[in-house]
Amino acid sequence: MSEELRRPSDPDAAVQSRRRVDLLLKGADWMVVCDEAMSRIRCASVAIDGDTIVAAGPAAEVEAAFCGEREADLSGHLLIPGLVNSHTHAAMSCFRGLADDLPLNRWLNEAIFPAEAAAVNPEMVYWGTLLSAVEMLLGGVTTFCDGYFFEEAAARAARDAGIRAVLGQGFLDFPTPDQPDPSRRLERVEAFLGAFPRDAGRLHPSIFCHAVYTCSAETLLWAKELSRKYGMLFQMHLAETAFEAAEFHRKQGERTVGYLDRLGVLDERTLLAHSIWLDASEIDLIARRGAGVSHNPQSNMKLASGIAPLHEFLSAGVNVGLGTDGCASNNDQDLFSEMDEAAKLEKVFRGDPEACPAREAFAMATRGGAAAVGLAKEVGSLTPGRKADVVAIDLNAPHLTPLYDPVSHLAYTVKPGDVRHVWVDGKAAVIDRKVQGLDLREVMEQVRRIARGLVKTRSPLPRASSS
Amino acid sequence: MSEELRRPSDPDAAVQSRRRVDLLLKGADWMVVCDEAMSRIRCASVAIDGDTIVAAGPAAEVEAAFCGEREADLSGHLLIPGLVNSHTHAAMSCFRGLADDLPLNRWLNEAIFPAEAAAVNPEMVYWGTLLSAVEMLLGGVTTFCDGYFFEEAAARAARDAGIRAVLGQGFLDFPTPDQPDPSRRLERVEAFLGAFPRDAGRLHPSIFCHAVYTCSAETLLWAKELSRKYGMLFQMHLAETAFEAAEFHRKQGERTVGYLDRLGVLDERTLLAHSIWLDASEIDLIARRGAGVSHNPQSNMKLASGIAPLHEFLSAGVNVGLGTDGCASNNDQDLFSEMDEAAKLEKVFRGDPEACPAREAFAMATRGGAAAVGLAKEVGSLTPGRKADVVAIDLNAPHLTPLYDPVSHLAYTVKPGDVRHVWVDGKAAVIDRKVQGLDLREVMEQVRRIARGLVKTRSPLPRASSS
Repeated sequence: MSEELRRPSDPDAAVQSRRRVDLLLKGADWMVVCDEAMSRIRCASVAIDGDTIVAAGPAAEVEAAFCGEREADLSGHLLIPGLVNSHTHAAMSCFRGLADDLPLNRWLNEAIFPAEAAAVNPEMVYWGTLLSAVEMLLGGVTTFCDGYFFEEAAARAARDAGIRAVLGQGFLDFPTPDQPDPSRRLERVEAFLGAFPRDAGRLHPSIFCHAVYTCSAETLLWAKELSRKYGMLFQMHLAETAFEAAEFHRKQGERTVGYLDRLGVLDERTLLAHSIWLDASEIDLIARRGAGVSHNPQSNMKLASGIAPLHEFLSAGVNVGLGTDGCASNNDQDLFSEMDEAAKLEKVFRGDPEACPAREAFAMATRGGAAAVGLAKEVGSLTPGRKADVVAIDLNAPHLTPLYDPVSHLAYTVKPGDVRHVWVDGKAAVIDRKVQGLDLREVMEQVRRIARGLVKTRSPLPRASSS
Repeated sequence: MSEELRRPSDPDAAVQSRRRVDLLLKGADWMVVCDEAMSRIRCASVAIDGDTIVAAGPAAEVEAAFCGEREADLSGHLLIPGLVNSHTHAAMSCFRGLADDLPLNRWLNEAIFPAEAAAVNPEMVYWGTLLSAVEMLLGGVTTFCDGYFFEEAAARAARDAGIRAVLGQGFLDFPTPDQPDPSRRLERVEAFLGAFPRDAGRLHPSIFCHAVYTCSAETLLWAKELSRKYGMLFQMHLAETAFEAAEFHRKQGERTVGYLDRLGVLDERTLLAHSIWLDASEIDLIARRGAGVSHNPQSNMKLASGIAPLHEFLSAGVNVGLGTDGCASNNDQDLFSEMDEAAKLEKVFRGDPEACPAREAFAMATRGGAAAVGLAKEVGSLTPGRKADVVAIDLNAPHLTPLYDPVSHLAYTVKPGDVRHVWVDGKAAVIDRKVQGLDLREVMEQVRRIARGLVKTRSPLPRASSS
């Protein structure tokens, strides 16, 4: 598509009777709407006005009703809604592959915490998040939900990348890189909200409490109250390891979700990441309160944390999204492989090849994630009124040939490199596999510089005993 | 690398004292040799003469000793040995995504067997295998070990793609697309061997017996005897499902591997695919006989077949390779995601994040697979004397930034699309992500034509009940 965005060459009489919109994506071989029925449409077009989808359906119908100020020919492509990565620590791209194949306590205490102590500052958060945002856009992710430190810097990076994001300022009860004195945490919130970029409706501030074992009841209540006051998503890690869940029960005499509910922090604006070691009553409570869950199969597998009760969440009606977690424990932010591993892990774990079919994996990566992070009305499907976050996948590849069902390909065979164009809010974010408006070389060089500094200041990297 | 293969511009005096070889791959940022120590070398070069590696090591050393008739600048790249896909049914690319998320019996009886009855012929095997060979080369796989029907056509496809392959003519006791009368199976072998392309040492004929439940003891003995006579690898599926293993035990009164050993078909020229439902005595027997195993985690997960005893195989000293299985049950032939899922599945299954570290996953995808398919002396590492099957990975990508350890990236973050150049036997098979000497459009169009024919002649595709 050498002239990706061209003016129609012949605006004849018929065109005059059609409604003119800003952008018409024309004649894709396939479109997966990601509505409730998971409709697959052959030869489809999408009409976009401003930042909004005004029509998406069979090409003949859409093109009879609309013409575009700019038009793009999508023959040979599959159109899907932009993917939603519902749990990330985007700045941790700076630590990608820093330490693998270690027990969680060694991984945290010998690799990640020292690296964070040495390297986390606004500059690192900016460049690490920008690198992640670019990686995600190139892989078809148009929305991510983040939690880390100096999150106003992460928001600036998301703004500069042109991606949609929910950005959670992180809190723990002990000193953090952005607030050495936990008693002064309100100042941190004020600094975060004060510096949060206000120039785009794509960016949503949020509060991220690390976990029940690092945040007291008082902290959780304070954070949830702030979240309610400012209409923010409240995020936390939940029951990531069996040890954490068992220790909490042993020390507190109650189960984690019951405790959170007793505190009153569970509601429809709460996102629970990982959520592995839960019993049936806890799953039921999450469903009744309407809280969302981010399912993170690859991180949970790599750290041997366990296998989340996906089937039980979905059966209970919980909004479940997929998340990569930070790429220090994954080691990338590829939501296509997250779908593939989510579906395959669920099948082998349950001994049931019908478990987590392709459509369910794809729904989690789009609609489910949008609902879980509080953006159900904005994104997650190609339906009129939603934001125009659209991904065009190039079907002209050996591994995507033949095509019997595009949803099968989305869950099991599409790779990030198959993403050719991405629009966010109707604006071109990726064209012909090139991210727009950014100097990608500089972004990578800045992160390499941060990584070099980290290696210089540290003792030798910990290694798995057998490597 | 616009002038990928150029003559050195200034063959000065120093050059005269260096040995001239056919091809010098110069100055890669990193090389992973895949020797026993899993050496990582910074700034590395490889000297290739004819089809053989003559030196691989630090650039300064190699370039002081050798100059190249042709030279390629590999700065910004990671060099690795070509990957080995140790279990495929390459022609089944024609059925990619035809039916997913079904129980094995419905998947086989309602989707795959009818599709095979309708579509398998030499032309389908040729085009399906050629498409798979291209997919694999573009993803860094330079050797595959196959089993299917009309396998002489598969061999022609492998020859035309310039890939290395072990090609197993398939046998079962009931009629097959290439031999409606099982009693005349010797004619099929003769036709296979008679038509097998003799023009390349890269192609190795083999015999593939489907499984103990589809091949009688007489068939297995006959096939193994033939394999011995012609020096061929003998392949079979083993203990893929719990039902298969239990039924065999119930009907025969002995376990599967004991039975195979009693028949005398287990030796160093035997490859056992899947190999999931085995007890300790069977694993021990496989190790003592020196038979190889192909570990197929993604196919085993997708069909919910089970989780193979990887740790036990490796502890017993079994040669274990990784295999994608046919892409009707995967749904691609991406050995990088096979490494990633093998490592992550093993960790979560064993509850041990140190299980299957990156180096072990990468060793299975290279050296381990080479040994399992009987090519230990030919391929699997970048060491002098081995065939020059070399892959250059482009490190200049957001998801590969930063790089602390190239082996971590190989197991957890490299994607097929990162493969930029591939040499097989020292000949360029892929340059700048383009397969050489083939019309890729025609290959894809031929497979699409076969798929269209299949859809026309069949009843509606079976679907998982929930999709």
